[in-house]
Amino acid sequence: MHELLPPPITLQAGLHWLDLIGVLAFALSGALLAVRKRFDLFGVLVLGCVTAVGGGAIRDTLTGQTPPLFLRDESYLYAALLGSVLAFGFGERLARFERAISLFDSAGLALFAASGALGAINFGLGPLGVVFTGAISGVGGGIIRDLIANEVPEVMYRRDQLYATAAAAGALAVLLLYPHVTPFEAQVGGVLTVIALRWISRRGWVRLPVRRLPEG
Amino acid sequence: MHELLPPPITLQAGLHWLDLIGVLAFALSGALLAVRKRFDLFGVLVLGCVTAVGGGAIRDTLTGQTPPLFLRDESYLYAALLGSVLAFGFGERLARFERAISLFDSAGLALFAASGALGAINFGLGPLGVVFTGAISGVGGGIIRDLIANEVPEVMYRRDQLYATAAAAGALAVLLLYPHVTPFEAQVGGVLTVIALRWISRRGWVRLPVRRLPEG
Amino acid sequence: MHELLPPPITLQAGLHWLDLIGVLAFALSGALLAVRKRFDLFGVLVLGCVTAVGGGAIRDTLTGQTPPLFLRDESYLYAALLGSVLAFGFGERLARFERAISLFDSAGLALFAASGALGAINFGLGPLGVVFTGAISGVGGGIIRDLIANEVPEVMYRRDQLYATAAAAGALAVLLLYPHVTPFEAQVGGVLTVIALRWISRRGWVRLPVRRLPEG
Repeated sequence: MHELLPPPITLQAGLHWLDLIGVLAFALSGALLAVRKRFDLFGVLVLGCVTAVGGGAIRDTLTGQTPPLFLRDESYLYAALLGSVLAFGFGERLARFERAISLFDSAGLALFAASGALGAINFGLGPLGVVFTGAISGVGGGIIRDLIANEVPEVMYRRDQLYATAAAAGALAVLLLYPHVTPFEAQVGGVLTVIALRWISRRGWVRLPVRRLPEG
Repeated sequence: MHELLPPPITLQAGLHWLDLIGVLAFALSGALLAVRKRFDLFGVLVLGCVTAVGGGAIRDTLTGQTPPLFLRDESYLYAALLGSVLAFGFGERLARFERAISLFDSAGLALFAASGALGAINFGLGPLGVVFTGAISGVGGGIIRDLIANEVPEVMYRRDQLYATAAAAGALAVLLLYPHVTPFEAQVGGVLTVIALRWISRRGWVRLPVRRLPEG
Repeated sequence: MHELLPPPITLQAGLHWLDLIGVLAFALSGALLAVRKRFDLFGVLVLGCVTAVGGGAIRDTLTGQTPPLFLRDESYLYAALLGSVLAFGFGERLARFERAISLFDSAGLALFAASGALGAINFGLGPLGVVFTGAISGVGGGIIRDLIANEVPEVMYRRDQLYATAAAAGALAVLLLYPHVTPFEAQVGGVLTVIALRWISRRGWVRLPVRRLPEG
């Protein structure tokens, strides 16, 4: 009977594909920044790939998975390379697809935050550790990208939108769902939480406070 | 009889509390810098936490402890969060307590340097490895803080005070004491060495040379 | 008979010495930058050492070797310290030996790229993982150096010369040679590939493209 209905496997494969799309999107964002900074071809490839795999590498290092997944499964580096080459080849035209890239970027953020949280739960971490690992897995690639490009990490400044906050909330959702559903469903719940929060914050309905400084 | 006198345990608990105070102080320093840089609320929390746990994460990665201590013992992340929230909430008022923060910061530097050195000794590293691991554990959080805030790490520039040097000296003290006393006493000796050097250098009695560059 | 002819061991020792020369050269490059940035004495030592051991630390972390080699074999830290002290003591005079430093730097790049590739192969990684690990091992120290000194990593900008590209090509050479020769010979082949490419690109015969941006 269950041979007829292996939906988890299909869904898992679907998540793997979504994961690769997220890697591709992160690679595009890193490589486009490198093009704008006038790095040479190899610099563009390096920044694209490091951005794409950075979050996952942090996640795997913190949760003791060696080597990191992107080194065990070559499809991640292929996706990262593809995104970087596309950004180099079609730079200015891709900029017109900014909305699509931003969507992919949200997908990557959501996927990495959820998988980071799940990895932390499986590793037996406590609640704060799960949320921290999920958030840092989601935003880590972007932070490394901005560090190498010598800019203050964008995720710290996106006041008009929830970004790192959405990743942390997604990790929290995985944590809260985990005891009640299958791990897989918890992960999907986390992904949807991040995407929903990103969508809401784009509408300008939510905004994080900035500490007002005294004059002088 | 020995039930009456468990001083190591009491002292160890005391060191754990001092450790948490150091984490709190590092969190304050990171979060205050983020407030000054006008990061949003979540950016302040992230920079505070990363500064607070960064040195320990480097120490645990170098000495093969996975997951890092701050993920195994949630009290570290609670202390880091508390410090970050305090800095966001009472930003300008905390600045008046700069002397207290600086004291806490020295305590954190001393604790992390000593625990890094002890971890390296337990791991069987040689003398230079012990000093290097101790120094990098002490100053690592501050370096990560300044990198993310896009500033040259302050520890490289504090010419008026010994900072990284004090951490290295504390690690050296742990190394020299280790064969003669208990590990715990060696750690305390390292902590006191760092604090003494910080105190002396504040008085302006010691200063590190800067290489004079030729004109032109 | 084979007691009379242990050339692999001699060669291995030779490679270890070349490795130390590369560490020394990387330390010189990091410490000289720190002198130019007016770091104090300890800042110069820290930046020199971190530059010298950074690439190897990344390699060992990615391929699951804990603790990293530079902590297991103290000679690496001695070489790193020596290079840093030399740079602090003879700063302006060393600048005249820029050609020699550049040669050492190429040797270090070549060695780390080849040893990173070999480590990745032994770890069972796929082709892209091998090339990525080799390239990042070669250029990692320089990237960390430039990040701490708050500059855009030079390896991204060296348009007039192949640098990261040479490291990746060397890793590829190790990968292609590996099934046909001994691991040791593969490593030597990778080293020679990097050095040859660096030599060719210095002559200005090869140049990487930079993506032209549209006006406005």
